[in-house]
Amino acid sequence: MKTQVCIIGAGPAGLLLGHLLRAEGVDCVVIERQTPDYILGRIRAGVLESITVSLMERLGLDARLKSEGLPHGGFNLADGERLIRIDIADLTGKQVVVYGQTELTRDLMDAAEERGLEVVYGAADTALHDVEGDAPFVTYMKDGALHRVDARFIVGCDGFHGPSRRAIPASVGKEYLREYPFGWLGILADVPPCNHELIYANHERGFALASMRSDTRSRYYVDVPLTDRVDEWSDDRLWDELAVRLGPEAAAHMVRGPSIEKSIAPLRSFVFAPMRHGSLLLAGDAAHIVPPTGAKGLNLAASDVYYAADALTAFFRRADNDAIPGYSDRALARVWKAERFSWSLTRLMHRFPEDGPFERAMQVAELDYIASSRAMQTAIAENYVGLPV
Amino acid sequence: MKTQVCIIGAGPAGLLLGHLLRAEGVDCVVIERQTPDYILGRIRAGVLESITVSLMERLGLDARLKSEGLPHGGFNLADGERLIRIDIADLTGKQVVVYGQTELTRDLMDAAEERGLEVVYGAADTALHDVEGDAPFVTYMKDGALHRVDARFIVGCDGFHGPSRRAIPASVGKEYLREYPFGWLGILADVPPCNHELIYANHERGFALASMRSDTRSRYYVDVPLTDRVDEWSDDRLWDELAVRLGPEAAAHMVRGPSIEKSIAPLRSFVFAPMRHGSLLLAGDAAHIVPPTGAKGLNLAASDVYYAADALTAFFRRADNDAIPGYSDRALARVWKAERFSWSLTRLMHRFPEDGPFERAMQVAELDYIASSRAMQTAIAENYVGLPV
Repeated sequence: MKTQVCIIGAGPAGLLLGHLLRAEGVDCVVIERQTPDYILGRIRAGVLESITVSLMERLGLDARLKSEGLPHGGFNLADGERLIRIDIADLTGKQVVVYGQTELTRDLMDAAEERGLEVVYGAADTALHDVEGDAPFVTYMKDGALHRVDARFIVGCDGFHGPSRRAIPASVGKEYLREYPFGWLGILADVPPCNHELIYANHERGFALASMRSDTRSRYYVDVPLTDRVDEWSDDRLWDELAVRLGPEAAAHMVRGPSIEKSIAPLRSFVFAPMRHGSLLLAGDAAHIVPPTGAKGLNLAASDVYYAADALTAFFRRADNDAIPGYSDRALARVWKAERFSWSLTRLMHRFPEDGPFERAMQVAELDYIASSRAMQTAIAENYVGLPV
Repeated sequence: MKTQVCIIGAGPAGLLLGHLLRAEGVDCVVIERQTPDYILGRIRAGVLESITVSLMERLGLDARLKSEGLPHGGFNLADGERLIRIDIADLTGKQVVVYGQTELTRDLMDAAEERGLEVVYGAADTALHDVEGDAPFVTYMKDGALHRVDARFIVGCDGFHGPSRRAIPASVGKEYLREYPFGWLGILADVPPCNHELIYANHERGFALASMRSDTRSRYYVDVPLTDRVDEWSDDRLWDELAVRLGPEAAAHMVRGPSIEKSIAPLRSFVFAPMRHGSLLLAGDAAHIVPPTGAKGLNLAASDVYYAADALTAFFRRADNDAIPGYSDRALARVWKAERFSWSLTRLMHRFPEDGPFERAMQVAELDYIASSRAMQTAIAENYVGLPV
């Protein structure tokens, strides 16, 4: 097979890019290791910034997002009994939309069939070749046969563990990594949320987050030691812990129910730079990971895809040779700021084992300052709704 | 001797409090271990917030400050070649005033003689007694005799190493401490400053600060390992290091000259809480230390003194019994926010031995974000000019 752009990975980043390129008349194909059902079974983030919503609008794929998504004009930081509301609508004039990544991916998948975006599922042993030159190609195994896709560019949207980043020689790129000494234990349940907006809580027993996917589906998290196993956390134990950490007001409105999904995810800050090598571009988790505090992961993938679609369109439609070399710097400028925000919000809202009384006092002082300063609330809000692309 | 308030320490905090109480008709005496010349020989901070300037105005002691002080409408953060200016005047409508702590102390000392504020210099072995009751007293040795001052309240303005804080039982108070893995090597020289505003620089060789006391007297700092000794730093070596760390633009305008003073000070964040125990109030360095980044030390002492004068005046003039118990919480609310600001600016502008590539990338990302965000610049500026009292 021959195409202009071979996209590896049919998660939201890969599918979004495929649709954007197709809309601009750029040929592409998406190669995916898993099945559609497997992808739709992954529970991920659920808060969309304007950049993500606007890309769905541009594609005309925002009908369900608009009707089912919940616009949020604020979120809350809790510290013991205190609740600090960040009124993002008032502070920035913008909102975020609560809409599960799974739903967004489903919309993109459904549209792929309708619009003829070619996606190859179940591609095993995907490998990238000759990425440094002008004629890279991708190989994969399917139905017992080796397949080959020749392309002018490859875009790696294949996540942290995918083969794309590893196709770049170690001598070329630099990895920036911070691992956190805890994981997030999450529960998904078909119960109404305890609060109409998100609550991030820093309790003496640890972090908790009250979130939701819809008016009838809730998503909650607590942080746990990395040594904990999911089977140590019965639903009851987790609901009890949430009720304590989120505080009496949230607990009074919390509706318990059986878990649909329950898992522990490690927290990590990671950036690989540069995000392009030769004819290979990286986008989303393939190039960077943020801790989930602040919900930047999916939205950063969306802004990468925005820059990548822009660069590839400039190359193929306007023969602009400067756009591709500029991709990495443009994308990374926004990535680093989102990494900073996610890291600092993680720092503020979790108890770190290495922290002493002074560091804890600094958390309280920062929350006091946030509560008292419109300028600081604005800084937080503008990061939460997403810095400009 | 019998008085209403015995103030321990005749640095700027003690003298300022003495004048404020005297102006309200509250009897007081100031006890000081050192001589006036010794106190005036100490080289300290030089950037005054509005709170500090306004207290001098209230006392009618601002004539020299107004004529010789340099109003500054901004300051700069440097990172390699880049200079980020924080336009505090535009962002907050306020300014700071560059005026040496030594000069401010001299103004207060001169006025003490004129106004009859009693200050006992050369008081040795000062000790506090019965601070938990209503009749505390202070003893000290002078001219070979033991002296005793009976008072209704004692205010400890005697710095980090003074006896006041130690008069509070360990079981009553809590200490919050962070020590930093470097010190500031400072040089004072009679040369014009390299820039009309302060420059805080985060260079790969370490921190540097270009500051001044007047148009003809400069104050510079670099951070050095705590194991360094002043005699390892000739003037020439220090000027060379400053020229590199401050960058080519500042270096081109830097005028070198012999040091008037050169010393290494450790950096420390420290808070003792509560700031009152019985009839003893603590103010300034006796209760808290900030790292000098951001110049908050003297200004925090001034706001403590503002609250202490307010509480003591309420007690003696209006027989208000609630004011003294409220002192600690009022003062600490502002102290903690200034501690946070000083700690975070220190964190942003220094290279820490324990930091890896990710943490350094977060410094760069934060500086990038600051450079691009008016909200974040406003948050920094409002802290720099001083949060409201």
